Amino acid sequence: MAGPDFPHAEYENRLETMQTAMHEAGLDALFFTCEAEMRYFTGFRTQFWQSPTRPWFLILRRSGMPVAIIPEIGAELMRSAFVGEIRTWASPHPDDDGRTLLADALRPHARIGMMMGRETALRMPLADFEGLRADLAGSEFIDATAMVQRQRMVKSGAEIALIGEICSIASKSFGAAPELFREGQTLSEAFRAFKIELLKNGAEHVPYLVGGAGQGGYGDVISPPGEDRLEAGDVLMLDTGATLRGYFCDFDRNFAIGHASPDAVRAHDTLWRATEAALAAARPGSTCRDLFEVMAAIVGDNGGDVGRYGHGIGMQLTEPPSLVGFDDTVLQPGMVITLEPGIRIGPGKIMVQEENIVIRDGEPELLTRRAPRDLPVI
Amino acid sequence: MAGPDFPHAEYENRLETMQTAMHEAGLDALFFTCEAEMRYFTGFRTQFWQSPTRPWFLILRRSGMPVAIIPEIGAELMRSAFVGEIRTWASPHPDDDGRTLLADALRPHARIGMMMGRETALRMPLADFEGLRADLAGSEFIDATAMVQRQRMVKSGAEIALIGEICSIASKSFGAAPELFREGQTLSEAFRAFKIELLKNGAEHVPYLVGGAGQGGYGDVISPPGEDRLEAGDVLMLDTGATLRGYFCDFDRNFAIGHASPDAVRAHDTLWRATEAALAAARPGSTCRDLFEVMAAIVGDNGGDVGRYGHGIGMQLTEPPSLVGFDDTVLQPGMVITLEPGIRIGPGKIMVQEENIVIRDGEPELLTRRAPRDLPVI
Repeated sequence: MAGPDFPHAEYENRLETMQTAMHEAGLDALFFTCEAEMRYFTGFRTQFWQSPTRPWFLILRRSGMPVAIIPEIGAELMRSAFVGEIRTWASPHPDDDGRTLLADALRPHARIGMMMGRETALRMPLADFEGLRADLAGSEFIDATAMVQRQRMVKSGAEIALIGEICSIASKSFGAAPELFREGQTLSEAFRAFKIELLKNGAEHVPYLVGGAGQGGYGDVISPPGEDRLEAGDVLMLDTGATLRGYFCDFDRNFAIGHASPDAVRAHDTLWRATEAALAAARPGSTCRDLFEVMAAIVGDNGGDVGRYGHGIGMQLTEPPSLVGFDDTVLQPGMVITLEPGIRIGPGKIMVQEENIVIRDGEPELLTRRAPRDLPVI
Repeated sequence: MAGPDFPHAEYENRLETMQTAMHEAGLDALFFTCEAEMRYFTGFRTQFWQSPTRPWFLILRRSGMPVAIIPEIGAELMRSAFVGEIRTWASPHPDDDGRTLLADALRPHARIGMMMGRETALRMPLADFEGLRADLAGSEFIDATAMVQRQRMVKSGAEIALIGEICSIASKSFGAAPELFREGQTLSEAFRAFKIELLKNGAEHVPYLVGGAGQGGYGDVISPPGEDRLEAGDVLMLDTGATLRGYFCDFDRNFAIGHASPDAVRAHDTLWRATEAALAAARPGSTCRDLFEVMAAIVGDNGGDVGRYGHGIGMQLTEPPSLVGFDDTVLQPGMVITLEPGIRIGPGKIMVQEENIVIRDGEPELLTRRAPRDLPVI
């Protein structure tokens, strides 16, 4: 068993900061159903969340250690995590998949915070949640999304070090592009070669690898690879979210196969300049909207369909905040974000370019090896 | 872009079968928020679901083609999917992340089926769902979990072929164990080597790889690998859910490092015999409970903490049904399930063994290369 990913003190700090916020918000408890918060507060990390069969619950109270209410299958691993109490049941269960245990644990609390806002999900059967709410008629469920997201946005030194390490691994892997990608190769072969390179260079896992290729640009940025072959004049883009101990990088690189069209070269240069402008503007006190606007001023009205020019990263491939016109989140030292301007090249053709940075006092720190200004040709 | 994973007729059949069931259940629409149902009914496949930022919605009506209500970023890929209509919005959005579009599309329908039962989640903000329900005061939301799960349990020939292919790839990869695993290697090195082997042998992705190692057995079956080194006398177990075009295998293999203890050899043999008994009982008309009971009779009261002895597989690592005492699901030809008996060897030590099979008229078909009766020593 691997043991927790960070020293005890890391989890103590997370809990203490959250409990202070709970106190200020007048919340008696926080109730979580999703992987990210379970892992953030306890260090419990397993790919077993891939199985949708069983729900997992975590409760934080205003004081004291976290309480995990989980299927028996997870008890052994949970014993090595940062929790005060583990209550288990035999899951799957014919008619009570944790609900009674959950109701008992939450009943003493009048004001219960939950993730129910932007970028959240309810990872338990809706019918069970509604049953729980009926069981707890004396309690109020309150949206705690903003306070939890606000805390998680600012990363600790240990978190930044991990994200930096996986960014270095992915940068090194992209550096091997001339040996990995070639004309005549299918996209699916190219993706497989890149995935293996990431693992060889030390990535633990590659939960996200998407991209595209096409003459002078690509049609979308979320496709799985097909059996089309790379041709001279194609622009190939791979966008990867690889992980190390559950922390993500998230960035892409573009490569011209054989030769690059003038439009593709110009688009790549424009994106590079947009990112430069964002790097120059990324200072504590600036807002996400500011970063969006300096990039938008350079790429013009051709931002493509991604809907934003960057976002937070960390335990999830994408986290708040969003670099978008409506997000007034103020940048703070320790925030780790992507800069991801996009541009439309022609009908159905776009290009994107992405870097991962940490907001610091003064200049931001690049975690990725900066994309070259000139579209690389391989 | 890859294009849909199956011919048009596959999706037509899925839709038609579901619409017949909707008619029988008196449902006017089905409303989905999760990846599996979106992909099952439309063929829309992307790892972009890794990003929790944006919700994605699918609506089936009692007649006509599926309607996708999705962020603009997915429109290009969705155009190649099996949908009649695509409605998009710029997401993330400051205050309406698809809710108005969704309400407009669902308003005409009085009885709306949803996944809200066992093994489901709500992949959209709870507050938005509650808002939607308030918007649609004239409509009733009804649990449609059972009817959808019942349909998805029985796989088509094309689905079985894909699962069979990924099972073969993983079987071949486990066959390379003597070259991949060795005394002195860290668990994390062993896992990485196995992941690379899976990719080289043709796996598209390895979303799930867990396991453990310890003297004569292991403590739990869901851990990520640590830096402990394999020692002589350890039993090493790797459990993988690798995928091909989004379809999973899910099985494990055990290996003794250097030499095997008599207890470990006996446990492995017992699990092998339990699986033989299940293979002999796995006939159309038998129930999941029957399979559970024949295995339980052999492993005795030492079943460990997994809570069941197998489950469905397909588009998800684990799907209904469950091989457990309370599941009366009747086996039908085309169901693809795992047989996964577990046994307790000593204090804090268990062993598991897993195969993937298809229920057929007559004998079931093994998709995995059968584990040897004797615990292999490497």
